[in-house]
Amino acid sequence: MATVNLKKLATELQLSVSTVSKALMNSHEISAETKERVLLLAKQLNYIPNPYASSLRRKTSKTIAVVIPEVADSFFSIAINGIEAVAQDKGYHVLIYLTHESFAKETAILKDFQSGRVDGVLMSLTSETVDMTPIHDLHARGIPVIFFDRVCDEIETAKITTDDFESGYKATRHLIECGCRKIAFLSFSKNLSISNKRMEGYKQALTDHNIVINEADLVFCTNDDAYNHALLKNIMAPEKHPDGIIASVEKLTTTAYLVCRELKLAIPQDVKVVSFSNLQSAPILNPALTTITQPAFDMGKTAAALLFRALEKPGFNLKKESHIIPSTLIVRDSTASSES
Amino acid sequence: MATVNLKKLATELQLSVSTVSKALMNSHEISAETKERVLLLAKQLNYIPNPYASSLRRKTSKTIAVVIPEVADSFFSIAINGIEAVAQDKGYHVLIYLTHESFAKETAILKDFQSGRVDGVLMSLTSETVDMTPIHDLHARGIPVIFFDRVCDEIETAKITTDDFESGYKATRHLIECGCRKIAFLSFSKNLSISNKRMEGYKQALTDHNIVINEADLVFCTNDDAYNHALLKNIMAPEKHPDGIIASVEKLTTTAYLVCRELKLAIPQDVKVVSFSNLQSAPILNPALTTITQPAFDMGKTAAALLFRALEKPGFNLKKESHIIPSTLIVRDSTASSES
Repeated sequence: MATVNLKKLATELQLSVSTVSKALMNSHEISAETKERVLLLAKQLNYIPNPYASSLRRKTSKTIAVVIPEVADSFFSIAINGIEAVAQDKGYHVLIYLTHESFAKETAILKDFQSGRVDGVLMSLTSETVDMTPIHDLHARGIPVIFFDRVCDEIETAKITTDDFESGYKATRHLIECGCRKIAFLSFSKNLSISNKRMEGYKQALTDHNIVINEADLVFCTNDDAYNHALLKNIMAPEKHPDGIIASVEKLTTTAYLVCRELKLAIPQDVKVVSFSNLQSAPILNPALTTITQPAFDMGKTAAALLFRALEKPGFNLKKESHIIPSTLIVRDSTASSES
Repeated sequence: MATVNLKKLATELQLSVSTVSKALMNSHEISAETKERVLLLAKQLNYIPNPYASSLRRKTSKTIAVVIPEVADSFFSIAINGIEAVAQDKGYHVLIYLTHESFAKETAILKDFQSGRVDGVLMSLTSETVDMTPIHDLHARGIPVIFFDRVCDEIETAKITTDDFESGYKATRHLIECGCRKIAFLSFSKNLSISNKRMEGYKQALTDHNIVINEADLVFCTNDDAYNHALLKNIMAPEKHPDGIIASVEKLTTTAYLVCRELKLAIPQDVKVVSFSNLQSAPILNPALTTITQPAFDMGKTAAALLFRALEKPGFNLKKESHIIPSTLIVRDSTASSES
């Protein structure tokens, strides 16, 4: 099929390319009669604007990027739905980029955005990210970047988070009220804003309940399931194992459950477990999992709505637009008080 | 920051835009000395090629699209990882589009691709798709489309599937061997290739074991969780409920478990359950879930590898490249033989 482009339309109509382009954009410079002729032929020939040519003329790509560590985490898959709900209304494409927790990959992605491939970026940092230069570079080029969930303090922009400190506090207090005295806190990285805030909440709750903070109970996992499994197996060894676990990352839940089973530790009798998780299957786990459930859909929606305000109104001050949407503690059997 | 584009480089170097462009593409028409001058300045000024301008010149976007129903399904999130593993090696961007099982949305996405936004498409159809015109239109424009998982017979192109008929047969035979005689088959849509093949396998297994096929045991769910819940509750009513369930779609598993719990039907004693699922949490469900586990990563990887062969070698005949990668039955407690 021969490509029908502006030039083809212009030739057929004996008009200039510029006139055809303006007619298609409904410019006031073009007469109603000419517009009608152009639109009719465009329809007849099934003309579809080339997005790259259009982007060059309009200086926009009608595309936003979502840069996240992974889609296998239920928080992110739900947040994407929230973002898409807004983008669809605005007629924008959503490009989803996965960093797989690699700072090198994240840097390469952001560097590519400098070229104008996308109009704006919604992102959640990797657990490795320490250098914010690639984000500063995007801002310098006028491409707005908004953080959701995993943010950094250094960059001044809109940040959509949940109440991580309070949730960490709530999860810990709940375990203490259920009788736990030695609570392990599982997280991914010392660099991750959300893990650190959740951990601060955990520490504060321990202190408020006169429980000494034990550095050995702060467990740093990685993106490697086998490593995490071995690490947890060591921590859950007989005699000295914790009586409570807080998984601050959803994917650590399965590992924690499997390790407890291998070591014949019963949940909740021997060890109680709370996870930061939006897993649809939480109520049907064995035992049903107590969760801190994040407002994933709302966080995605709010972040996307702010990005479009910034794109539509260039003077819009994103720095003043940080939102904290609270999470919910949902108590299930994995933290039930021991019957013994 | 002022934009550094080809024109800016050309002005600074007192060369034509075309010469600068050719020098950057290492054209044999340009002298080594000129190339060196151009590259040096490009580096000094941190020149980044505009992908839209580059695309117009090269006629490629260096982008492939993955069009799938959702990312909340573990099959798709793992398949994306397989696709990305290949695309990253090739220096391509992966655009992920979600149809949310809507044929209208799928059509709009495919129509947009006609413009050349992407070089090729990997897709898994919605459960609503009945009209293949949008895919024919893409092929007519020379944009290769490869199917994975959810395919259609009408389009002649590469199709990467798993052995859906055999898996449906295997799941059913397993339930029969565990003592089930009335097995419900849960699926999404009568249009979905994979559901139909799995259902054919189910019917064949029943026939081979002299069990009469009962149309009332074929249960068609939708994308609406509340509807599915009510539907299953009706089917699982006392006296006449099935003694086995095959969930041919992962997300129906949680609904089936919750309904059984509400109705005080014990799994596996009263009802045995097998799901087509790649859920990481399958072993920690209550009870642990027997699954048909699909080769999701390999399917994504194979589909992407074929797409790149087609992109790199225009004469490559995709029609001859259909691959079936077998799934695995993993037996867990949800189908354990009743002790009673």
